Amino acid sequence: MKEIKAGLIGLGTIGTGVVKVFQKNAELMEKRLGARLRLVKIADLDITTDRGISLDPALLTTDAYAVIRDPDIKIIIELIGGYEPARTFVLEAIAQGKHVITANKALLALHGDEILAAAEKQGVSVMFEAAVAGGIPVISAIKESLCANRFRSVLGILNGTCNYILSRMSREGQEFETVLKDAQTQGYAEADPTFDIEGVDTSHKLAILISLCFGTRVDFKSIYTEGISNISALDLQFAKQFGYEIKLLAIGKLGYGKVEARVHPTMIPISHPLADVGGVFNAVRLQGDFVGPVMLHGQGAGMDATASAVMGDAMAVTRDLLRKGPLRTPSMGCAVAVRADLPVRPMEELVGHYYLRVGVLDRPGVLAQIAGILGNHDISIASMMQPERQIGGAVPIVIMTHDAGEANVRAALAEIDQLELVREKSHLIRIENDLA
Amino acid sequence: MKEIKAGLIGLGTIGTGVVKVFQKNAELMEKRLGARLRLVKIADLDITTDRGISLDPALLTTDAYAVIRDPDIKIIIELIGGYEPARTFVLEAIAQGKHVITANKALLALHGDEILAAAEKQGVSVMFEAAVAGGIPVISAIKESLCANRFRSVLGILNGTCNYILSRMSREGQEFETVLKDAQTQGYAEADPTFDIEGVDTSHKLAILISLCFGTRVDFKSIYTEGISNISALDLQFAKQFGYEIKLLAIGKLGYGKVEARVHPTMIPISHPLADVGGVFNAVRLQGDFVGPVMLHGQGAGMDATASAVMGDAMAVTRDLLRKGPLRTPSMGCAVAVRADLPVRPMEELVGHYYLRVGVLDRPGVLAQIAGILGNHDISIASMMQPERQIGGAVPIVIMTHDAGEANVRAALAEIDQLELVREKSHLIRIENDLA
Repeated sequence: MKEIKAGLIGLGTIGTGVVKVFQKNAELMEKRLGARLRLVKIADLDITTDRGISLDPALLTTDAYAVIRDPDIKIIIELIGGYEPARTFVLEAIAQGKHVITANKALLALHGDEILAAAEKQGVSVMFEAAVAGGIPVISAIKESLCANRFRSVLGILNGTCNYILSRMSREGQEFETVLKDAQTQGYAEADPTFDIEGVDTSHKLAILISLCFGTRVDFKSIYTEGISNISALDLQFAKQFGYEIKLLAIGKLGYGKVEARVHPTMIPISHPLADVGGVFNAVRLQGDFVGPVMLHGQGAGMDATASAVMGDAMAVTRDLLRKGPLRTPSMGCAVAVRADLPVRPMEELVGHYYLRVGVLDRPGVLAQIAGILGNHDISIASMMQPERQIGGAVPIVIMTHDAGEANVRAALAEIDQLELVREKSHLIRIENDLA
Repeated sequence: MKEIKAGLIGLGTIGTGVVKVFQKNAELMEKRLGARLRLVKIADLDITTDRGISLDPALLTTDAYAVIRDPDIKIIIELIGGYEPARTFVLEAIAQGKHVITANKALLALHGDEILAAAEKQGVSVMFEAAVAGGIPVISAIKESLCANRFRSVLGILNGTCNYILSRMSREGQEFETVLKDAQTQGYAEADPTFDIEGVDTSHKLAILISLCFGTRVDFKSIYTEGISNISALDLQFAKQFGYEIKLLAIGKLGYGKVEARVHPTMIPISHPLADVGGVFNAVRLQGDFVGPVMLHGQGAGMDATASAVMGDAMAVTRDLLRKGPLRTPSMGCAVAVRADLPVRPMEELVGHYYLRVGVLDRPGVLAQIAGILGNHDISIASMMQPERQIGGAVPIVIMTHDAGEANVRAALAEIDQLELVREKSHLIRIENDLA
């Protein structure tokens, strides 16, 4: 029986999950591959901590290059995360003619172009199913099963921490800070949760999805990114009254030669399947010109689910290695040379419905003032609510708009915030009604 | 640029969709493949009807063998459906060394073993993403992305007609016959809907899913199949009161070396994602030992969505044809020789919760009689309801059981149906609570 050898760099949570798959499902994988895929070397700076798995010490090394440069190893699994030394290791593995499997979305979002060009030149694969939505097979769905479709949009709930926090805030009416602290205690949020709650992690993943769906390079910095730390329990409560749930949504759309690429808290209709995605689950909704809407739902993180994605990639590469000829599927779904450089639509050009909230002193005429400013900026009001509820001496005014331009909304809010009667500055949450 | 030629047999609804993809997305596919995939011949008995597409008449023939035996054609797309002549055509295509793509679930469920063995011997692929759940990429998810997982269960809502009917019955409180007639008028149900409403179509698809997930042959006749024609609006109403939705569910599970393979109306908790799958949509929920639960949701039928699946397969085969060596992935996920022959658990061995309904004359003592019979058969009652509602001189008694054996339940119901006070014979609906 043919044997393909793999090496692992990074024996953290996901790395340990990968070792578990190798140990538990070796026979099953062999049956499905008609060949043996073996993990022969593991590098980590810490090779003494007990990770709850029994490992032959001879497999372990603290020297990543002992894995990367081993001539017998054909597949390098990179699971150390972060930009460096991950970038250096991956580029070196490619230079050595190895196929690379990674779960590193930050690396791909920022250095993807450099890595993919190097890999294509060397004729090796870079696989990254685990980098987006954990165990959910969305990357291969886009690259393989749905590849006869022209994609119109991709929407995702891609960060389990944010979704857990928003789901609990929505269900329990608690405030962001309270739920975040509890999530940290329970291990659903990192000690430093910035990357998650400020939307950066979601943005990394969106960059990869857009690149795949629309066959274009994406400058990560051009993605509008807004996190969930400004969402209050009040907003979730108002959202429900209007028939919405608030989710941190990654939104990628293609239209008129421009890409919409944005990550922000979004009101979506309660009846939409994405509104039901609760807790730490992830989901991705794709819209193709033939397939229509397809939604994939599952665990977006965690040792086992992410290891499942890594190993699916490892088996795909093994299958490719058993054959000869050019690479089966280019890493980004098409060759580097034919990728586009579509411009990202500036956020100011966005047109949509908005939820606006501002805290004011409850005096006659305040509503008229606000409505007047909105009218001056060409923003028409769909509904307005002023609950009899004092918060710190002020009452909230909530406004749902018809179609309005982002630039106009921002200008109007800046003006409203200057009003003498305003006690709590305005918040906006964008609404997506045409999710299909 | 390399060119791979494909031929199509069957220019019905899906066939027309396939032609549309070739016409509309040729450039896109070429970009993604780095090669050209061309449709060079189309066979159909009827080549004169206008199908709303413009076609070069030179492509058309009434002779299927002119396509199958064309030495330039490497890929045969079979979309005529049914057992014969589809089986003969597919076997001949394989004998000619062609790769086959089919949407024919009936053919695969009944003649899959013969076809797969022939294909493996010839070293060609048989691809069938379109045969299960239309556009949803579930076959490739099982065979490729999730292939490092040991699957524990597969659950599916796989028939759009049944799901449309049940969804409307649930929402509108209408009876089966009424909604069926309306569905036929609207084109959501066939003139002869037997295969759909009696669960046969779902069963065909379940046979394929079980075969793939558990790596085993399945004797189609061993799948327990029960349709939706006995479900009444009353059942859906009671289900809701207990917190359930009723769906025609395909259930495949693996445990203790036996396969559970059954299709029947099933009560599932309203909070479960499968309960939300409405209208003509399909969904499949897989449970893998590493990935956990994954759900895929989308359009299970229709010209465009099914064509998307066919073309995804065609592009996969094209990618394989551009390389050399053994087949990349065996058609059923593993080689024929290593497939198992797991026994199907007899339905009588099933243990679970049941919903029972029987119509009785409203006399003192009737409840005690029924409860007594259930007790004698070792069936314990979780709750019981006797609404004050006369239907044809009788009142319904509804019972939810704790864990009970299927054989015991059937025996008890047979005894209950003999009671003098029974006016409407008993119905049972199985409940799945541990859907994960």
